[in-house]
Amino acid sequence: MEILLKPIAIVINNRKNLSDDYWGNVVSEIILDESIPTESLIGIEEFSHIEIIFYFHQAQDQVKFSRHPRGNKNLPETGIFAQRAKDRPNRLGVTIARLIKREGRILTVDHFDGMDGTPVIDIKPVMKTFLVNKNEVTEPRWVKAMLTNYWKE
Amino acid sequence: MEILLKPIAIVINNRKNLSDDYWGNVVSEIILDESIPTESLIGIEEFSHIEIIFYFHQAQDQVKFSRHPRGNKNLPETGIFAQRAKDRPNRLGVTIARLIKREGRILTVDHFDGMDGTPVIDIKPVMKTFLVNKNEVTEPRWVKAMLTNYWKE
Repeated sequence: MEILLKPIAIVINNRKNLSDDYWGNVVSEIILDESIPTESLIGIEEFSHIEIIFYFHQAQDQVKFSRHPRGNKNLPETGIFAQRAKDRPNRLGVTIARLIKREGRILTVDHFDGMDGTPVIDIKPVMKTFLVNKNEVTEPRWVKAMLTNYWKE
Repeated sequence: MEILLKPIAIVINNRKNLSDDYWGNVVSEIILDESIPTESLIGIEEFSHIEIIFYFHQAQDQVKFSRHPRGNKNLPETGIFAQRAKDRPNRLGVTIARLIKREGRILTVDHFDGMDGTPVIDIKPVMKTFLVNKNEVTEPRWVKAMLTNYWKE
């Protein structure tokens, strides 16, 4: 079975190069593709957060099915589905971003980690019914240490 | 630009028919495709929750870019990117599920709303750094009313 996707929007921001950290001050514009009518965004401005599904267009073709996160040998060897690295089967990323404003066919967001030129595959509103709170979640210890600077400016 | 995906796993559960509500007692098995090595799951059992990206294989080809959610005229006309309905461009769903256990190539989850036979495109661990808490999120009033029975048994 094969599934064919077409991007519905593109990311514009000042992140031109691959980078793991310091996404805190990046503001992005998500601009709808011309194939998508403006009405598809009606009411989105009533949500504070949106989930953006995007394509890691600069990911490597070769997937390592297990690896040390960030290539750091001090972190345990971990399956690709137990990490969020870009070099993964199907190359999709998902991030909950904060919606700052909508102007016609343009969404402005922050707290989003896609680089400039990233193709956007889908946008979903964040609904409380589908969230879990941080205090309900457990994760291995290496995660927090690795991500210390992720959302820093 | 076109993007080709191949499923990495399949969903097995007792939900054989399309249904909007009452996902509370559904337990699903996510079984890795034979093209994917078992090592891709190393360490996933250390996470309490996983994000499952899946393909709405029973969605309709024809997308309405705006509609009344659930076809309910009492709810406001809303763009497809301001709702999470299945009949959407690229037909992808994303849900945070609770990971009950891993046994080899099989993950058992609940709090997941994909029906039996759903192709799985990606699995990501839920990390606190990428979550927002419910009290940080605002959503329009119609959402909560619509989803009253979603996770009920």
